[in-house]
Amino acid sequence: MVQAISRGYSDPRASISLPDDKDMLSKVRHIVDDKSKLRPEYLVVVGTGGSNLGTIAVQEAVLGRLYNQLNPATKVLYADTTDSDYINNILQLIEPPLRTDGSVVVNGISKSGTTTETIANFEIVLNQLRRYRKDYENYVVVTSDKGSKLWDLAIGKGFDVLEIPEMVGGRYSVLSPVGLFPLGLLGINIGQLLEGARFARDLCIESDVEKNPAAICASIQFLHYQEGRNIFDLFLFSNDLESVGKWHRQLMAESLGKEFNKKRKRVNIGITPTVSIGSTDLHSMAQLYLGGPYDKFTSFVSVEQNNSDINVPRLEGYAELASEIQGKSLKAIMDAILEGTKRAYRKDKRPFVETTLPDKSESSVGQFLQFKMIETIYLGYLLNVNPFDQPDVESYKKETREILSRK
Amino acid sequence: MVQAISRGYSDPRASISLPDDKDMLSKVRHIVDDKSKLRPEYLVVVGTGGSNLGTIAVQEAVLGRLYNQLNPATKVLYADTTDSDYINNILQLIEPPLRTDGSVVVNGISKSGTTTETIANFEIVLNQLRRYRKDYENYVVVTSDKGSKLWDLAIGKGFDVLEIPEMVGGRYSVLSPVGLFPLGLLGINIGQLLEGARFARDLCIESDVEKNPAAICASIQFLHYQEGRNIFDLFLFSNDLESVGKWHRQLMAESLGKEFNKKRKRVNIGITPTVSIGSTDLHSMAQLYLGGPYDKFTSFVSVEQNNSDINVPRLEGYAELASEIQGKSLKAIMDAILEGTKRAYRKDKRPFVETTLPDKSESSVGQFLQFKMIETIYLGYLLNVNPFDQPDVESYKKETREILSRK
Repeated sequence: MVQAISRGYSDPRASISLPDDKDMLSKVRHIVDDKSKLRPEYLVVVGTGGSNLGTIAVQEAVLGRLYNQLNPATKVLYADTTDSDYINNILQLIEPPLRTDGSVVVNGISKSGTTTETIANFEIVLNQLRRYRKDYENYVVVTSDKGSKLWDLAIGKGFDVLEIPEMVGGRYSVLSPVGLFPLGLLGINIGQLLEGARFARDLCIESDVEKNPAAICASIQFLHYQEGRNIFDLFLFSNDLESVGKWHRQLMAESLGKEFNKKRKRVNIGITPTVSIGSTDLHSMAQLYLGGPYDKFTSFVSVEQNNSDINVPRLEGYAELASEIQGKSLKAIMDAILEGTKRAYRKDKRPFVETTLPDKSESSVGQFLQFKMIETIYLGYLLNVNPFDQPDVESYKKETREILSRK
Repeated sequence: MVQAISRGYSDPRASISLPDDKDMLSKVRHIVDDKSKLRPEYLVVVGTGGSNLGTIAVQEAVLGRLYNQLNPATKVLYADTTDSDYINNILQLIEPPLRTDGSVVVNGISKSGTTTETIANFEIVLNQLRRYRKDYENYVVVTSDKGSKLWDLAIGKGFDVLEIPEMVGGRYSVLSPVGLFPLGLLGINIGQLLEGARFARDLCIESDVEKNPAAICASIQFLHYQEGRNIFDLFLFSNDLESVGKWHRQLMAESLGKEFNKKRKRVNIGITPTVSIGSTDLHSMAQLYLGGPYDKFTSFVSVEQNNSDINVPRLEGYAELASEIQGKSLKAIMDAILEGTKRAYRKDKRPFVETTLPDKSESSVGQFLQFKMIETIYLGYLLNVNPFDQPDVESYKKETREILSRK
């Protein structure tokens, strides 16, 4: 791994070099500053999979899942798939500012530059923007591989462009301009995000395995997989981390789910990632998790320090319903539920590991994402598969293109 | 099953009698009318698991996932777990209307009446309401089993109360006042929801198995489970149906994940439900689904008629990026992606069934929910487990209470 860093972006593990790239950070900051001057009421992120999951993960972790409703300066909308009702709602939302003197910034993101859904949605949103703004080009930023067809088109149209280093794959690209530009525009401290990632990266490339948390966790997961546990449950005890779970779902599924191993032998291998939210999903999944088959390995994630806390107010009569929580803080109740859950797992011999984030700051989230990316690379090595390709995705895309070109 | 209907609410399958209960519907409508007169800016639903998953499912399917942001008369917030940051955000959102002359309706829902998180959040939200409204009782509705401690407290405080029939378990309760009251207050046609459910119910209790869609689908799933597929993926090609997936996740996990079978033999049986969204998750999960192990059975769900459609506008230069979509409608693109995906699954011998909803109307959603509930009951019979209990949930709750009472 240390080797990979010296090779920078010419190595398949290129993503671990992103936290060191001062040049990239300064280019992103420049465009963030520029677009911030437009005082956008909305940022529309057009991208899917690796092009938006990391951004949603960090945005919700740092700013909260109810962010848009809390009336921030810049709201964010994600146009990911070609769902006509959803895209129509997005158009409805951005129309009022466009009709008046508000502004809307659009970030179109596609590594290949040819993602069907992204191009469709990008054209639709740009068309709306163009209807209201003659200088609509000033409100558009394109993030893509340098020299992709989308890149060339963006240059031709006069959009700002940001480059994804070629060897950085979509699911490893959250710390590239893919995540950094939209997050920066929303006021997230992207310097701190990268700092956190760099800190974790340095711990996780340590060659002494026993001192390397990513290597240790990968080994544990590998051993459980070998014992027949084909499901990995990321059980996050924090509402705002649900999208970190969805980001990890892609990372694990695409990196490890493989038809062939590195020796081109057919293996049809893979671990199915699931996302659970504590304590919410204890009320929907705990019966299965504690009574069902021993086919899962669980990773609990919690947050040590929330941004706020509230005490249960000891209203008259309610002690009859739940005496043990009166006067306690919500955080203390949540911590007790996690502790109670771990005890139940232990008693029932349900295997798990645990990670605690100090808080939901940019630095902590950056650390966690970097840790999971390197852990996944190690898991790929242990499973003897290539954690950087996704050859089987082509099959449905090919069929889809064929259907569309005949329609 | 026909038998169960004649027994009404005295049978464990009581939930299938809900669509016939005119008395319940009229009681719910009465309180909906009453609270609508308050012109609430917010409805806060305090409940978790079976007490809110069905409501969220129907609300988002019918009104859309971006509903709150589209500036409706009554917005809805769900207080499910004791996440201090999330609950704090909810308090922030309801404060402006409370400070002025707006109103906020609170629906506290707990079947047992003693759910830890629900009681904690209920007290916190009520405390806020009480601070601003002397007659705060008028803004509160409690839904619970008749005679539960919460029921008695609600009567004592002068809150409106709605009853959950005792034999209707949480995960089967969406068509009871648990779902009907909040949905009705948001303007959803609950009569149509029940009508749809009744239509599906009558099809799904048909004793000739070959004419019974729920029995057929349950049998197919059962056979695939027996062949070692321990994961069931509900793959919904519609953004607004994601929470229908989350509702089904509880239904399947709690109903079928069991330590003991009906003969009290330890079996540790269960199917792990996952939720995927098309086409979004093709960009995160397709590599695993098409390249990984043959450990899944998939159920595709799509919507025939969306509420709106939009054409890709043929902007200059974009045909270079994706020629096959220019001028096509988003719905046609989505349909092609689903068709392409099914072809890829077929070629790769990945087993699936498919359901198409005519639209996202109350009637169609009601049909689908009722269909899945009866299918799950049949699956329980086939697996020889009790689909109505959840004994293992007690273990973590016991541990949690112990920790909290020592704190």
